[in-house]
Amino acid sequence: MSDEVILYTNPMSRGRIARWMLEEVGVRYRREVLSFGGTMKSGDYLRLNPMGKVPTLVHGDSIVTEGAAICAYLADAFPQAGLAPPQRERAAYYRWLFFAAGPLEAAVSNRALGFHVPEDRRAMIGYGSYDEVLATLEGALSDQSFIAGSSFTAADVYVGSHLMWGMQFGSIEKRPAFEAYVAHLHDRPAHLRATELDDADMQELQAGQEP
Amino acid sequence: MSDEVILYTNPMSRGRIARWMLEEVGVRYRREVLSFGGTMKSGDYLRLNPMGKVPTLVHGDSIVTEGAAICAYLADAFPQAGLAPPQRERAAYYRWLFFAAGPLEAAVSNRALGFHVPEDRRAMIGYGSYDEVLATLEGALSDQSFIAGSSFTAADVYVGSHLMWGMQFGSIEKRPAFEAYVAHLHDRPAHLRATELDDADMQELQAGQEP
Repeated sequence: MSDEVILYTNPMSRGRIARWMLEEVGVRYRREVLSFGGTMKSGDYLRLNPMGKVPTLVHGDSIVTEGAAICAYLADAFPQAGLAPPQRERAAYYRWLFFAAGPLEAAVSNRALGFHVPEDRRAMIGYGSYDEVLATLEGALSDQSFIAGSSFTAADVYVGSHLMWGMQFGSIEKRPAFEAYVAHLHDRPAHLRATELDDADMQELQAGQEP
Repeated sequence: MSDEVILYTNPMSRGRIARWMLEEVGVRYRREVLSFGGTMKSGDYLRLNPMGKVPTLVHGDSIVTEGAAICAYLADAFPQAGLAPPQRERAAYYRWLFFAAGPLEAAVSNRALGFHVPEDRRAMIGYGSYDEVLATLEGALSDQSFIAGSSFTAADVYVGSHLMWGMQFGSIEKRPAFEAYVAHLHDRPAHLRATELDDADMQELQAGQEP
């Protein structure tokens, strides 16, 4: 069992990113659904992820947290899936993975919380402004179907998830380049499978919570 | 010249992370110092990085932005430097690169700006709280010299830079585990060289600004 893959997740979290990635990789895995503020804060789980957050991926002795890290890790650990560019051609791949994990995530979260960075302090903030972040991503997607070049990679799982969820919940503005990009990711068999599995977990959770 | 490496930077920016990484890799590169709000916002530069920020690394036809992405890219593009773990053993490497680029960066920036996430909205925010982020990183560093395992990697350049700068400027609390970690990174020949080069650039910039 030393190479077992376990995903600790919750269907109402960024754990969905990791599940989509696992379905793209096509590896066997076990999923453990944790509850917010409950099993997510248990001692056993905090030993894996002291942040008490999901997702966490365990693969044998390896522990990976952070949605983007799980995507990058799985692409490299299972190279037969072809989800990362060759090692020397990863400029755009890393650029956009880290752009989404850093500036995009921060700009979108702060805007949702009503935090506005004063003009004179933008230089010190990695993301500058929400508008610059969205315009930069829009420019990158306006002339290509995949964020890191000519084929689908783990970076599309991560960037695509941000855009799908952001546009669905209204935290990211709908723009034609984003909608076109997301549209052709949405129907990938692995994405549909992951969504179905997570939706089933969500129904089960909700049924369990009813009186 | 198609494989030329060019670093667009400013010595008063996170460009210092990229320069340290370049010195660790030991590759020949040209550095272009850009001014905040000046050449950083020029049309030529915005074509490379529409965010108008530094650092940006150009390597032949490849363009990489985001400090962490530049570290990860260089480690893979120049594997002879031995700055990334083998492809299948990157759990901790990616985990802490993305942890620093995401939760750490966001928590530290928001605290510096006086943005406090209300208790009831922490679950929606990737970093939870500043205290949880620092405690998690402290735990990871308390029993090892390098963040991704038994040897120095690009993740140490990135995480180490965050901690060095954060503790110097007071945005990250000094803690024994952080100080011990940073102390043995500080005197690496590549770090000392990079610091000397950036300090010289800074003096030149300041001399140029004097009447």
